[in-house]
Amino acid sequence: MKPIILSSPAPRSLELIFTPEKLALLRSKYEVVETTDEALATLPPDQLSEARYILGQPPLSEETLAALQNLRAVLNVESNLMNNMPYQTVFERGIHVLTTGAVFAVPVAELGLGLALDLARDITAADMAFRQGSEQWGGDGNTQARLLTNADVGIIGYGDLGRALNKTLTGFNCRIKVYDPWLPPSVLIENGVIPATLDEVISTSDFLFVVAAVTSENLHFLDAEAFAAMRPGTCFILLSRAEVVDFEAMMDAAQSGKIRVATDVFPQEPMPENHRVRTLPNFIRSSHRAGALDVAFKQMGNMVLEDMELMDKGLPPMRCKRAERETVSRMQSKPVTHN
Amino acid sequence: MKPIILSSPAPRSLELIFTPEKLALLRSKYEVVETTDEALATLPPDQLSEARYILGQPPLSEETLAALQNLRAVLNVESNLMNNMPYQTVFERGIHVLTTGAVFAVPVAELGLGLALDLARDITAADMAFRQGSEQWGGDGNTQARLLTNADVGIIGYGDLGRALNKTLTGFNCRIKVYDPWLPPSVLIENGVIPATLDEVISTSDFLFVVAAVTSENLHFLDAEAFAAMRPGTCFILLSRAEVVDFEAMMDAAQSGKIRVATDVFPQEPMPENHRVRTLPNFIRSSHRAGALDVAFKQMGNMVLEDMELMDKGLPPMRCKRAERETVSRMQSKPVTHN
Amino acid sequence: MKPIILSSPAPRSLELIFTPEKLALLRSKYEVVETTDEALATLPPDQLSEARYILGQPPLSEETLAALQNLRAVLNVESNLMNNMPYQTVFERGIHVLTTGAVFAVPVAELGLGLALDLARDITAADMAFRQGSEQWGGDGNTQARLLTNADVGIIGYGDLGRALNKTLTGFNCRIKVYDPWLPPSVLIENGVIPATLDEVISTSDFLFVVAAVTSENLHFLDAEAFAAMRPGTCFILLSRAEVVDFEAMMDAAQSGKIRVATDVFPQEPMPENHRVRTLPNFIRSSHRAGALDVAFKQMGNMVLEDMELMDKGLPPMRCKRAERETVSRMQSKPVTHN
Amino acid sequence: MKPIILSSPAPRSLELIFTPEKLALLRSKYEVVETTDEALATLPPDQLSEARYILGQPPLSEETLAALQNLRAVLNVESNLMNNMPYQTVFERGIHVLTTGAVFAVPVAELGLGLALDLARDITAADMAFRQGSEQWGGDGNTQARLLTNADVGIIGYGDLGRALNKTLTGFNCRIKVYDPWLPPSVLIENGVIPATLDEVISTSDFLFVVAAVTSENLHFLDAEAFAAMRPGTCFILLSRAEVVDFEAMMDAAQSGKIRVATDVFPQEPMPENHRVRTLPNFIRSSHRAGALDVAFKQMGNMVLEDMELMDKGLPPMRCKRAERETVSRMQSKPVTHN
Repeated sequence: MKPIILSSPAPRSLELIFTPEKLALLRSKYEVVETTDEALATLPPDQLSEARYILGQPPLSEETLAALQNLRAVLNVESNLMNNMPYQTVFERGIHVLTTGAVFAVPVAELGLGLALDLARDITAADMAFRQGSEQWGGDGNTQARLLTNADVGIIGYGDLGRALNKTLTGFNCRIKVYDPWLPPSVLIENGVIPATLDEVISTSDFLFVVAAVTSENLHFLDAEAFAAMRPGTCFILLSRAEVVDFEAMMDAAQSGKIRVATDVFPQEPMPENHRVRTLPNFIRSSHRAGALDVAFKQMGNMVLEDMELMDKGLPPMRCKRAERETVSRMQSKPVTHN
Repeated sequence: MKPIILSSPAPRSLELIFTPEKLALLRSKYEVVETTDEALATLPPDQLSEARYILGQPPLSEETLAALQNLRAVLNVESNLMNNMPYQTVFERGIHVLTTGAVFAVPVAELGLGLALDLARDITAADMAFRQGSEQWGGDGNTQARLLTNADVGIIGYGDLGRALNKTLTGFNCRIKVYDPWLPPSVLIENGVIPATLDEVISTSDFLFVVAAVTSENLHFLDAEAFAAMRPGTCFILLSRAEVVDFEAMMDAAQSGKIRVATDVFPQEPMPENHRVRTLPNFIRSSHRAGALDVAFKQMGNMVLEDMELMDKGLPPMRCKRAERETVSRMQSKPVTHN
Repeated sequence: MKPIILSSPAPRSLELIFTPEKLALLRSKYEVVETTDEALATLPPDQLSEARYILGQPPLSEETLAALQNLRAVLNVESNLMNNMPYQTVFERGIHVLTTGAVFAVPVAELGLGLALDLARDITAADMAFRQGSEQWGGDGNTQARLLTNADVGIIGYGDLGRALNKTLTGFNCRIKVYDPWLPPSVLIENGVIPATLDEVISTSDFLFVVAAVTSENLHFLDAEAFAAMRPGTCFILLSRAEVVDFEAMMDAAQSGKIRVATDVFPQEPMPENHRVRTLPNFIRSSHRAGALDVAFKQMGNMVLEDMELMDKGLPPMRCKRAERETVSRMQSKPVTHN
Repeated sequence: MKPIILSSPAPRSLELIFTPEKLALLRSKYEVVETTDEALATLPPDQLSEARYILGQPPLSEETLAALQNLRAVLNVESNLMNNMPYQTVFERGIHVLTTGAVFAVPVAELGLGLALDLARDITAADMAFRQGSEQWGGDGNTQARLLTNADVGIIGYGDLGRALNKTLTGFNCRIKVYDPWLPPSVLIENGVIPATLDEVISTSDFLFVVAAVTSENLHFLDAEAFAAMRPGTCFILLSRAEVVDFEAMMDAAQSGKIRVATDVFPQEPMPENHRVRTLPNFIRSSHRAGALDVAFKQMGNMVLEDMELMDKGLPPMRCKRAERETVSRMQSKPVTHN
């Protein structure tokens, strides 16, 4: 008898997150019951009772959860946590709630570094000028250029993405300050970064990366006052969610020339057709493309397989990130509807 | 009596390459005779006879050189070597010919990495689409995207710039192959890169950086055949001089979609107004801006001061790069006329 | 009202694990009730009921645990877990069981590297020969010497100590294979090491470090057969617990000259006076000194303070290591009776 | 016609410095004339006239040098430079004088780190105590122990060995100060170390490594005053030559308990039988074994082959270290008589 997986990974699909080889492996090791968020609760009682894993993030009632007597883990491959199951009971029972968002860390970090270098060296602007025959040659084109090497870098939020970002900066000898209220200072020090207050990070950075997840406490916490406190010419790169900034204030700060901004996320996606963000100067736009690489989705499948293998042996999962009893209900990033 | 420096640094100026503090230091330690390439030979014989250093790259006849009885070094702050002095005599006498091109290594490497990430993630193209309201969201915008992390990287030429580039790649866990016929394999291995033939580097790279100086042997050595041998989708970044590639073949390779190209150098600078390069797809243009940062120019002055301090003590210079007797006449990069 | 800590850290003391400044901080933020393992259950009911943290690892009955209504965490500063509390209930209630053994990782790793280099270069043996006037000079003294740089290294167990060890090896360009059945391969790969089977690690290493904790499954798993499978001349360094090896077989392997051994741990501590281990050749002895540095003990106090600060805010602890529901009862390292 | 090599590598031999494969390669590419220091000048005039390379460091008169019309390089595989040839003429002619001492850098650095860790953790002393049944267990044996991680490290001299030493320290997050009067500060900064005065390095280090070559200026420059200025408990590791320290003062400093010393070099080698150095406490002795590993000698052959291949192509040598016109006569390390 193979262990049972109840699979409802929408908007992901099994084909998106597993390579053909890994999908074959999955099916050879497990009985994969493909269901939907709506239908899961209506599966035959013995399937529910025997199911070891849920792949996806279907809503679970106390009653359904009670029926899932052998459930060991919910493997949430979307990775933004919803308040759609009785987490208290889930944690009491020792059921792991696992997310795979770490797969996006490297792709997002690479785009983030690319955007930072673009802002620092006007790559996009210079190419557009060249297309139009108005390019400036040599030093004349570099009056605002700056180096990343030896620069003061700030990072707000130090989860998987912050770590990946720090790694891409290894070769640049930067002085990296980090603000993350959920981590003790010594953990940051061990990671080779300098623990700092939010004010310090905001006001003493040449490059400022925002990679904090949205929580119930940090909505719009980067506001007009924060932008006013930044060093002139700060390269500001927003990579997590638009909700953590006051987007209007951020656009104003770019428009005024106070700072330079690149963002991968927007308050509406897509933004309205004639919105000023589309032609804002000192501003680079990326349409929520930072993480959504095929190679990242395929890594989700690998993570899921590795952790199920550990849990099959009675060991704790070590690959995916575990939702925490204390913080699960504070997470506010909306799940994506589009891969 | 202060040691005498004969200064003719055009197109640089003392103000360009020294900060005010360092320029004051220079003038306090040395008697700086400001002259020109033309006038140098006509300076009073005792000035010539006493001069310890030349700052710049003035043409020197055997006769003038003979008059420069106490010359210890020519500090060429332009840094492209011209065949305008009797190098044989210069080297016999143990006069150092020093170049300061290393100051450009970090700025060029950073732009190179920025261009590579731009090609890999379509940063410029995506921003232009967003401006026009035709952006693709999420994974739909990433069909051609690739990661630098774990990629196969090729570097052609491994001088100061190659080393700086390798350093920027530290955090990406790349497999880096290098072709440099002037360096023994074990030196490359010590630098953590894999020595390779030119063919290997061309045909097995996802990202290919060209940072080789122009020599009498490598004009246009990257030709149509080379571009044909590359992996489809190779991100090709040209950072040294346009003369090392067959520029037409490179443009064809980008236009066909075979590879993606970013270049900081062009066969003519500026290029003609209606040249196809200006609107070529799969192509990012930078107008010879890679190195010309003020911070780089100012570092020249620091290097010059550091090496003169060593030579003043009778020690060999250790900061600038020394021209080599064997290769000085092979160097073919044209000096710049513009900073 | 300050939060209450019930403190019973024996064999540690508050003075051992806190610097005077940190101890003052502890007392200023918390009401520290100093008790003993025996007396804890008999504390006044309101103290038990209000207590937020336990510092130490006192035995807890279901009844006492029920009385500890507001307990958030047991901070086990000894760090070897005993089966002396109803873990099932503890985990159901979301009480964290935290250990501070990570403080020993760096000291142990450094001693481990020192022992490895000693074995590789005969440092101790050469000094002893020199004392006796029988030293060999130059290459004559190096017939068995080997380099760590570029060597094949094996690590068995990859917890905090394995990571610290890997870090000390950063500058040596080793090929590092790791066996750890509790970790998925991709986590090891991200750490820059090569996941491997136990057999591979045993049979293909020039330097072999054993840092695995004792569990119910790995008693004496390195036996005569394992030593026979090693490369001749393997430098074998035992740093975790003597119980994971067949100590007699290990001594035989050293005595025969097959391998060289250094160990910090012994089946009895102290070993009998005339035991052969005391004069065994190809063998370096360290008397369980690897971790017990004052600086490590003081770090325990810092870790405890950092995690209590997070938990005071309703956040999960991020500094100490959490005992896991799945594995807590498998851990078999005996607690120390001596600091 | 193969190019001619005149070979007189004593005390090395071709078999010592070339693996059998490389020796076969050497003989297939070159005509190797095996001669001696004494006989070289008496070789047939056409052999002298055609010889391209000298392997070894034979004395050369102006007359012999004149006869060596096609000489490109003297490849000194002993690597301590003697004043036994007319260097002025050699340099005028552009003949390279190359040394291969870099092969010893990694072996010496590794022993240096091993000695440092031994001093820091009393590895040798603890093993000797254990043999005698007087070992101290746990923290009792660590009263003087210290960590390398995060320590203040000083390095005196920053040639190949200093660089190799710095590399071995990569994983320890040390603050590394370097004194080297022959290098400009910015070169040290690029190497990730802090340029410092001799006084600073001496008086602010927990670990102090001496790797400076002996020159006409630094004989015994580390004297009683220097030892008095060190931090109590400094771990002092002498790796280059005994002549740079006042050896008596160094022994006194160890004997008094002020510092701990490890040395690989001695004023006489071997030292007298009953010399106090043999039993000095706080002192570890290594009998000039740091570099003399077979693997290092074999690397010499590789270096020589690589540089001759470059010079055969008319390129400058890039693998061996070149003697410098300014400093060649200042070098005072006595050549070894023993491998």
